[in-house]
Parts: sequence; C-alpha cells; structure tokens
Amino acid sequence: MRIGFLGGTGKEAAGLALRFGSAGVQVILGSRSRERAAQSAETCNGVLGRPLITGLENAEMLDRTELIFLTVPFAHAVDAVDMHRASLRSNHVLVDVTVPMIVRAGRAELQDCEEGSNSESIAHRLPAGIPLVAAFKTVPAAILANLDTSLDCDVFVCGDVQDAKQSVMAAASVIPSLRPLDAGPLSAARTLESMAVLAVQLNLKYRKHGARFRIAGI
Amino acid sequence: MRIGFLGGTGKEAAGLALRFGSAGVQVILGSRSRERAAQSAETCNGVLGRPLITGLENAEMLDRTELIFLTVPFAHAVDAVDMHRASLRSNHVLVDVTVPMIVRAGRAELQDCEEGSNSESIAHRLPAGIPLVAAFKTVPAAILANLDTSLDCDVFVCGDVQDAKQSVMAAASVIPSLRPLDAGPLSAARTLESMAVLAVQLNLKYRKHGARFRIAGI
Repeated sequence: MRIGFLGGTGKEAAGLALRFGSAGVQVILGSRSRERAAQSAETCNGVLGRPLITGLENAEMLDRTELIFLTVPFAHAVDAVDMHRASLRSNHVLVDVTVPMIVRAGRAELQDCEEGSNSESIAHRLPAGIPLVAAFKTVPAAILANLDTSLDCDVFVCGDVQDAKQSVMAAASVIPSLRPLDAGPLSAARTLESMAVLAVQLNLKYRKHGARFRIAGI
Repeated sequence: MRIGFLGGTGKEAAGLALRFGSAGVQVILGSRSRERAAQSAETCNGVLGRPLITGLENAEMLDRTELIFLTVPFAHAVDAVDMHRASLRSNHVLVDVTVPMIVRAGRAELQDCEEGSNSESIAHRLPAGIPLVAAFKTVPAAILANLDTSLDCDVFVCGDVQDAKQSVMAAASVIPSLRPLDAGPLSAARTLESMAVLAVQLNLKYRKHGARFRIAGI
C-alpha cells in the first residue's frame, strides 16, 4: 500500500510522511507545484537520513498511490477533492485529517460545517465508489514531526466503508507507539473534530504543544 | 465543602459518592424519597465499611451542601433544576454530569439539545447567580463504583464562572488517580458529551465497559 498526500507541503503532511516513511512505507508528497513537492520531500529525507520520500505534482501522485491523505487546509479540502475528481480511481481510499478550526484571541473555535463535520462535507462531494475515512484528526502535527517523541496515543478512525476503514487502521498500525481504534461511522468525525479543538484549547491553557488522547480501559 | 447529589439513587451518583466518601468528603445523597436516599446511602456505606454517606430528601440535601451534582437521567435534568429553584442559594455550585445519549440497536447516539449541549440547556434555566459547571461526563459510572479499579484518567471540567470551575476542580483533585483538566467555557460541554458517546461506542465495539480518556502531553 503506497501512501500519497494531497497538499503535501504542510506540517501535518510532513509529520505523517516522516512517521510512515521511517516505518518503511512508500510515501509520495503531492502538490500543485512539482518543485515544492520535491523540496518538501527533500526536507523529510534529510530528517530520515535516507531518500525514502518522493515529491510529485498532485495528479501524478494520485496515479501512483492508493491511500491518499487529504492534508490541505480544512477550508480548501472540498475544492481540492473537486479539482482532482478526474484522477480519483476506485482503488483509492481517501483519508481526511482536516480539522475545521480557527484560533483567535487565544481561543480555539470549531467552525460549523454544512454536513455536520468537514469529513462529511468532503464525502458528500466525492464521486460514487470513492470511500472517505476520517483519521489522525487528534494527533498533533508537531508531535508527528518530531521522530524522537513517542506518540503514546490513540488514533481514532471512522468511516462508513468497512474495508476502507480497515486499510487505514492497518496502515496506522505500522507506526510505533500509536494504536488505531475503530471510532464507528463517518458521522463520528464530528466528535473527532471537536476533540481536536479541545486538545488545542488545552495546549493554550496549559502552555503545551502536544496534547493528545489515549483511551484507558481498552 | 460538602457534596450533595440531586437524584442520588442512580449508578453515577453511587460511583461518585463512593469515590468522594472514601476520600473523606462529606456526602449527602438526595432523592424525592427520603427512604430511597437512605437505602442508597446504606448500600454505599456497606461498600465503604463506614457510615460516611447520608441519604435525605432533595430539598434537605440542598440545604446542607454546597457542591451539588446533578445525577438525574439526562432528559429530566432541566425539570429537576426547575423543580428545586426555590431551594437553590448563591453559595451553591451545580455540577452537571449528564450525557444526552440513547443506546439503541447496539449503537450509542448523541441526542440534540436546544442550547447545543445538555449543560447549556440546564444553565439556560437556572436562576441568575447560580453557576453551572460540567464535569465527569466522560468518567464511566461502572469504573467509579469499583473502588478497586484505578481511575487512571482525566476529568474534563468546563464552565463560564471561574471560581465555580476551580472549586469543582479542587473537589475532583481529592480523588486518587484522577486528574482534573480545565476544558474551557461551558460550551465545551458539547465536546465532552460527544466524547462520552464515543467512549460508549468504543465499549460496544471492543466489548469493554470502562473506556475513558487520558490526555498525553500535558
């Protein structure tokens, strides 16, 4: 299973690419600009000490990967999917990691989404037969990018297509110190998005950067 | 600080009363029926091995306690507050632990609340000057009631009145293996209520009973 990033030049993409790359997964960062994708890949490879990650234009990336992480800014996710619908194939699984959040006046705020969550809004616009899974919304980019820090948390995975959800959980399980948990149907993304906002709120309150969730009792 | 329970004959009240009682806090269980309150108190005292918990009629309980936990079924919480508004005093702090959830067909579902969360709906109906704090929504009753089980989780506390929130956090901090975290304004109750539903959903999926949240990184 090859992993691609649609909008692969941001922090979340870099963090996930580093974790997957160092676990031996083939990773391709996508961008509108092949050059910027290549630069981001080079930066990641510098951290890894090996040329494990490639940078390509988004459509090329889609052509060569199966598990596609949506790592564009949350407000652009629906448009990004629309823009690339001609390149989406039935063996693609899309993974939405976006959180519809704005931080202002020292406070993190969840933004209203038409379909209840950003994940559901994206799913609503996807071509039939392309499954969307929500995951990694509560795993902070800053912690992902620091390979010396043990993640030490759970990744909540939700979606309405069982096979797709299982493939995301299987992919997540290759990352050490991270436990995938099946969080139910795609509508649970509403909860995961609000949890991500709570984590940022806790970071602001307690002057930390890596608040993240673990479930005790399971 | 004496702790009372409005609707103190259910599972959540028993679990909290046992944890607070065994930490040496004075606890009074309230009920519409003084007899049933006394019975519940007796059951708790049997577990504790000491007569630490008292049972009284709700209005008497309100007269003798300062921190009042709302432990009625979620759909009755607004009415319970309305019914006792004449007994509420300015030195009371109300703590809402309810979760607007229905479990059907093997699935836990969050119920819509007029004001966004059950806590906000309750706060909307309280007399002016009586603060409401939301807490303990994600701490499972079954785990609270089993004193041999280490709670090993965080209790998220939110509210719009700082003093009231601080007094609830201070009270929670006497319970071993439980860490109070300031989760922000009362509107964060929306997140806490949906997290409680997610925890029940995880219990159903993984055939457990005590899924609960811990924050790593703080």
